[in-house]
Amino acid sequence: MDNSIINQHISRQFNKEMEDIRNKVLTMGGLVEQQVDLATNAFMSYDMESAEKVIQQDQLINALEKDIDHECTEIMAKRQPAAFDLRMLIATIKIITDLERIGDEAARIAKMTMRIEAADYYQDKYYEIEHLLEMVKEMLNGALDAYARTDTEEVIAITAQDHKVDREYTSITRQLITQMMEDPRNITRALDMLWTARALERIGDHSCNVCEHVIYMVKGKDVRHLTHEELEKTVNETR
Amino acid sequence: MDNSIINQHISRQFNKEMEDIRNKVLTMGGLVEQQVDLATNAFMSYDMESAEKVIQQDQLINALEKDIDHECTEIMAKRQPAAFDLRMLIATIKIITDLERIGDEAARIAKMTMRIEAADYYQDKYYEIEHLLEMVKEMLNGALDAYARTDTEEVIAITAQDHKVDREYTSITRQLITQMMEDPRNITRALDMLWTARALERIGDHSCNVCEHVIYMVKGKDVRHLTHEELEKTVNETR
Repeated sequence: MDNSIINQHISRQFNKEMEDIRNKVLTMGGLVEQQVDLATNAFMSYDMESAEKVIQQDQLINALEKDIDHECTEIMAKRQPAAFDLRMLIATIKIITDLERIGDEAARIAKMTMRIEAADYYQDKYYEIEHLLEMVKEMLNGALDAYARTDTEEVIAITAQDHKVDREYTSITRQLITQMMEDPRNITRALDMLWTARALERIGDHSCNVCEHVIYMVKGKDVRHLTHEELEKTVNETR
Repeated sequence: MDNSIINQHISRQFNKEMEDIRNKVLTMGGLVEQQVDLATNAFMSYDMESAEKVIQQDQLINALEKDIDHECTEIMAKRQPAAFDLRMLIATIKIITDLERIGDEAARIAKMTMRIEAADYYQDKYYEIEHLLEMVKEMLNGALDAYARTDTEEVIAITAQDHKVDREYTSITRQLITQMMEDPRNITRALDMLWTARALERIGDHSCNVCEHVIYMVKGKDVRHLTHEELEKTVNETR
């Protein structure tokens, strides 16, 4: 067997390993998306069964994180990758940390839901949370899509959405504080909504982080802590 | 120049680079510790000047994160490290993410402090927060110390402390909710304390994460998502 065949073989095996990691990240991402949806809907519709399911499934996410992390490190040690491959592995290690934290936020909403007393549940007052959920689901989905397609085309739109999420979150907070002041009997329920809104706002932040890691992976640029304008400029410059 | 001299030279240069990263992480850690202290005290003593300083210094932490991250990646690409060196670089990349998030929590407390109206400030009611601050400061300091000494001797004590922090946080939350219900005029101030307590509780979590990364670096074991008993067993097994 001459060297070129060995090299081809190694490179084919390597590509397979990288593809395997990519698929696992997308599996993990899909599961995390499902958890966010399930947990928030469990909270809004007082559905204890779904809340319980979210708490159980959180372990799958944790296991996937450890598994993917381990594979990335193994490849680094064994293959000594460079350029895009190294960036993809480093970006992946960071992305799965953010995905795991999104999973944690979903689990937090689910655990809180399990503690709600039936007396504190109101069926028809969750419009704001519903809207916030839709916005962050879109962000998370877009971020995962950018990773899947190794493409930064859509990331500017996603990070722009984060400002809307922050504004919505601030507005919800204000309304809830007013409700609490008007009638102290609203306090428990308003606090539950406050924690849920906060968790969703954090999920938006983590989705932005995923976008930043994808930009690093694709463009080789570290865009963390830039203003939205600087980020947009960097992504367009290196297109 | 024969090969062994070249190798010695390379290895000396490599050691210098690794040492440089270690020192930068400890500088970043020291700064983050200072920020947590400064921000929480600014909140408790209504000190706008300190709050402002925290917000400004947050940029230094962000810059250090990017700088250290870049250096770790460069070494991975250039030196293709293995075993402990590779683990140290990967652990470092994760540790600085947690340190940066601790910095974010401190900045969050500072920003909230800047928004407090003078009328909502009460001088003598922050004992619980003070106690929580002392606990998480100890955890953060211990975690950084474990990294500095490449030693897992103390990490069990730190992660055990996290349970106490969680209990303290839950107890503070309950007290604050009672205060809100008793007198709606307490709501704004109680919420500010709630956010601060929450930020401190999160800082405790991030300090635990740092400990877990140090265990991975030193022992080569991924101990995330284990119970405290499992973690203790793993650390002792591989001593």
